[in-house]
Amino acid sequence: MDTLEALRTMLGASQVLTGADAQPYATDWRERYSGQALAVVRPADTAEVAAVVRLCAEQGIPLIPQGGNTSLCGGATPDDSGQTVILSLQRLNRVRSIDTDNDTLVVEAGCILQSVQKAALDAGRLFPLSLAAEGSCTIGGNLATNAGGTQVLRYGNMRELALGLEVVTAQGDIWHGLRGLRKDNTGYDLRDLFIGSEGTLGVITAATLKLFPLPVARCTALLAVESIAAAIDMLGRARAGLGASLTGFELMAGDCLRDVVRCFPQQRFPFEGASAQLPWFTLLELSDSESEAHARERFEVVVGEALEAGVVQDAVIAESVAQSHALWHLRESIPLAEKEIGKSIKHDVSIPVSRMAEFVESTNAALQAAFPGIRHVIFGHLGDGNLHYNVAPGVGWAEGQLLGRQYDVYGLVHDRVHAVGGSISAEHGVGQLKRDALPRYKDPVEMALMHRIKAALDPQCIMNPGKVLRPE
Amino acid sequence: MDTLEALRTMLGASQVLTGADAQPYATDWRERYSGQALAVVRPADTAEVAAVVRLCAEQGIPLIPQGGNTSLCGGATPDDSGQTVILSLQRLNRVRSIDTDNDTLVVEAGCILQSVQKAALDAGRLFPLSLAAEGSCTIGGNLATNAGGTQVLRYGNMRELALGLEVVTAQGDIWHGLRGLRKDNTGYDLRDLFIGSEGTLGVITAATLKLFPLPVARCTALLAVESIAAAIDMLGRARAGLGASLTGFELMAGDCLRDVVRCFPQQRFPFEGASAQLPWFTLLELSDSESEAHARERFEVVVGEALEAGVVQDAVIAESVAQSHALWHLRESIPLAEKEIGKSIKHDVSIPVSRMAEFVESTNAALQAAFPGIRHVIFGHLGDGNLHYNVAPGVGWAEGQLLGRQYDVYGLVHDRVHAVGGSISAEHGVGQLKRDALPRYKDPVEMALMHRIKAALDPQCIMNPGKVLRPE
Repeated sequence: MDTLEALRTMLGASQVLTGADAQPYATDWRERYSGQALAVVRPADTAEVAAVVRLCAEQGIPLIPQGGNTSLCGGATPDDSGQTVILSLQRLNRVRSIDTDNDTLVVEAGCILQSVQKAALDAGRLFPLSLAAEGSCTIGGNLATNAGGTQVLRYGNMRELALGLEVVTAQGDIWHGLRGLRKDNTGYDLRDLFIGSEGTLGVITAATLKLFPLPVARCTALLAVESIAAAIDMLGRARAGLGASLTGFELMAGDCLRDVVRCFPQQRFPFEGASAQLPWFTLLELSDSESEAHARERFEVVVGEALEAGVVQDAVIAESVAQSHALWHLRESIPLAEKEIGKSIKHDVSIPVSRMAEFVESTNAALQAAFPGIRHVIFGHLGDGNLHYNVAPGVGWAEGQLLGRQYDVYGLVHDRVHAVGGSISAEHGVGQLKRDALPRYKDPVEMALMHRIKAALDPQCIMNPGKVLRPE
Repeated sequence: MDTLEALRTMLGASQVLTGADAQPYATDWRERYSGQALAVVRPADTAEVAAVVRLCAEQGIPLIPQGGNTSLCGGATPDDSGQTVILSLQRLNRVRSIDTDNDTLVVEAGCILQSVQKAALDAGRLFPLSLAAEGSCTIGGNLATNAGGTQVLRYGNMRELALGLEVVTAQGDIWHGLRGLRKDNTGYDLRDLFIGSEGTLGVITAATLKLFPLPVARCTALLAVESIAAAIDMLGRARAGLGASLTGFELMAGDCLRDVVRCFPQQRFPFEGASAQLPWFTLLELSDSESEAHARERFEVVVGEALEAGVVQDAVIAESVAQSHALWHLRESIPLAEKEIGKSIKHDVSIPVSRMAEFVESTNAALQAAFPGIRHVIFGHLGDGNLHYNVAPGVGWAEGQLLGRQYDVYGLVHDRVHAVGGSISAEHGVGQLKRDALPRYKDPVEMALMHRIKAALDPQCIMNPGKVLRPE
C-alpha cells in the first residue's frame, strides 16, 4: 500500500489533504515561506499521531509538525520537494482537565492560546502567556518555540509555565509525561529538551501547564527618560520597590511613539513640551493582589522617588482601566506605525540589560555608517533584555533599497549582538530563517552537542528536517 | 606513564590524593555510602578539569564529580572497585563577576551555597536558594541535583535560578555557555539537560545565576487547621491574597510540633487548649517590598478572612523578626525531634496538591495495616506539593525493628506516591539510592529516551557511572 493510501486508511480520507487543499498549510501566515507537501494529515488524537509517525518512520518520510502556522521563522513550512508530510495538530484541541487545587491544567497541543487563557479565566485563574498571535497560535507551537511575550518578567517563558508533556517520539512511541509537579528530580529533564526544539526531536501532543491567581487590579505608568541608562536605573527601582507585582517593563524609543501619534491621530500622546521630545520612554505594568488604589499608590511612591532623583523626567500613572489600555495601545501600535513608514528589517534579539545602552549606541552608529539615513525603530521588553531592534528605510528611499541589503543588515546587527553576549533569537526561535547563522554565533562544542542529541533521538532525521540544524 | 603519574604531572602532586587522604571523599557526609577511589584530584580551574577528563576518557577511567559531598542519595560516592577518580570541584570556588544591572552573578561550581548568598547580599541582592546544607553544599552539586528548599514557591528550583552554564563534556571539551539572558531561543536546551543530571553527562564548572531585589520586610504566620483539605484551602487563599509575596507555605503534622516542644522545652508552642491539639499546622512566610507594617496588615486581612470562614481554627502572626525566627525554628527543629524518637525512614516525595489529603490518609492506613504501631512524621513544602513523609519506630519498638524492613516501607510508600501521580524524588535526586526504583515508576519510553541521551553524550559511560541509570 502506498503512503497516501495507508494514511487514508488510518485517519479517514477526509483527514488527508493533498493538492490545493494542502497548499494553505504549506505557506506560512505572512507568506514569506512556501513549499510543497506530499500531504497534510489531521489526526484526531495522540494515538493517531503515533500511528502516523510510526508509518512515516517505517517508510523514511519526513514529518513537519504544525500548529497555528504562525511561525515568524519558517519553522513549520515544508521545502519544495513535495516529499514531506505536514502533521497538523489542529484537531487535538481539547482542554483535558483543570485542577484548581493544584493550579494546573492539561491541554492538547492544538489548543489556541486564547482558548487556554479563557479556560483558565473561566476557572478563576490566570494563564499568563500573552503575545500578539494569541488568537491563532497554538500551545504546541508555543511549547515548540518556547514562546515569550509581555509578561515574562514576572511569569517566565513557556518553559517556566509547563510542568509536564505528552510527546510522540520520532519512533512513534508515546511518552506519557503529563506530570503536574513543581518538584521532581528523577532523571534527565526531557521536558525542557522537547520544549524549544521546534519539532525536530518529536511531536508534543499535550502539556500540563501552571495556573496563577488572577490579579485583583492592574495599573500602568508611562515614564519619559533621557537615556537607556536612566531606563535601566528605573528598572532596578521598580524591581526593588514593586517586587513581583511588576509584571511588565517595556522600553520604547521616543521616535516610535511620535510615529504612532502621527500615523494614528486619534491616539493621544500624554506628554507635552520638552517631555514629549525625550528620546526614550518606559511603560510599566503592575499587577496587584490588593486593590486599584493600592496599585496606584505604589506607583506614586516608586515613580515619585525616581522623579525626585532626576532619573525620570516626566510620568503619567493611569487613573483608570481605560487609561491603562490607552497607554498599552500606544505601545502595541508601534509595529503598525512601523509598517506605515516602509517595509522594515526586524531583529528579535536579547542583550544583557547592563550592556543594552552600549549595544544600541554602537549598533546605531555602525548602521548609520554603513547605510546613511537608515531609520531606527527600537522597542522591546527591557525587563527581559529583549529588544525588537528594527530598521526602516530612510526618508525618500526607493522601494527595495533597504530590503535588497537585508542580509548585510542582519549580519551587522547580529555580529554586534554576539559581541555583547546576546542572542540572535530571543523569543521567535530559529526555524529556517536563522538556521545557517547559528554556527557563526554558537560555541562549536554546543553545536556538536546539539547534533549528538538530534542523532540520538531522531537518527533517521525525519522530524522537521532542515529546521534549527543543518543536516550533517 | 600510568594514570596517577600523569595526573600528578598535570595538577601537581599535592592535588592528587590517594590512600587515607582520599578516604574522606570516598564516604558521604552521613556515612551511609562508602567506596574506594583510585585517587581524588583537585583541579584549580576549568582548563585543568578539562585536561583531567580528557586523560580519563583516553584511558577509559570513570570519573565522579564531587562538590560538598552532601548528597542524600549517594550521588557522589564511588563504588568499591578502587578504579574511579573522584573529581573534586572544591578549588573552583571563585565568584567570577556580579552584574547588578543585569541582576546576575557568575560563580564557579565549587562555591559554597552560603558564600553565594553572601556575595549577593554584599551587592544588595538576594540569591534565594536556601536549604539545610547551605553551609557546606556547593553550587555545582545544587545544579547537578536541581536543588529545591524552602523558597521554591516564589523563586523556583535551582533550574529556574540558572541562566547559563560552563560545562566540561565527557570528551573533555569545554562548552562556554555562561549566558546571562532571560530569553534565548536558539536551539536545544542543553542547560536544563545538564542541570539535574547528577554528573552523569558532564561536569558543570560554572554558572550564571539570577539575582533578585532584597525584600524590605519578612513576616511569618503559624495557623492551626483541622485537615489537609483546610490547609489546601488556605494555600489557595494565600496565593490569591498575597500574590507573589507569599514566599513560603509549609505543612506540619501537629504531632511533629508537639514532639518538638516535648524534646526541646525551651521552645514555646504558641497555641494552648484545643488549638494546640489540632492535627495540622501551616507556616506561611510573606516577603514584602513595602514595610513590616504592610506585611503584617496583609496577613491580618487574609488570615482574618480564613478564620471567619472557619478554614483556619487559630492563628499567630509574628509581631517581630524575633518571633518570626521562633516560628521558623519550630519548623526547622522537626528533624532533630524526629531523631530523638528513633531512627526513621525518610521519603522525599512530591504529590499534586489536590491529591495530598488522599495520599496521606491512604498511605497512613496502609502503613498501619502492614506495620501496626508505626509512627508518622509528616511535614513539608505544601506550596510545592513536596512532602517529607517519614516514618518512625512505634513506642517501645526494639532498635532495628523498623530499619530491617526499610525496603518494604520504601516500596509501600513509593507505590502509593506513584498511584496518585507523584514523584519518588522531589528535591534530593536519584543517586545510588533510588536508581533501581526508577524503572518501576518511570514510563518505559522515558527510560529509553534517558538511555539514548546518556549514550549520545557519554558513550564510554565514564561520567559518574552507576548513578541515576543502571548501566545497560
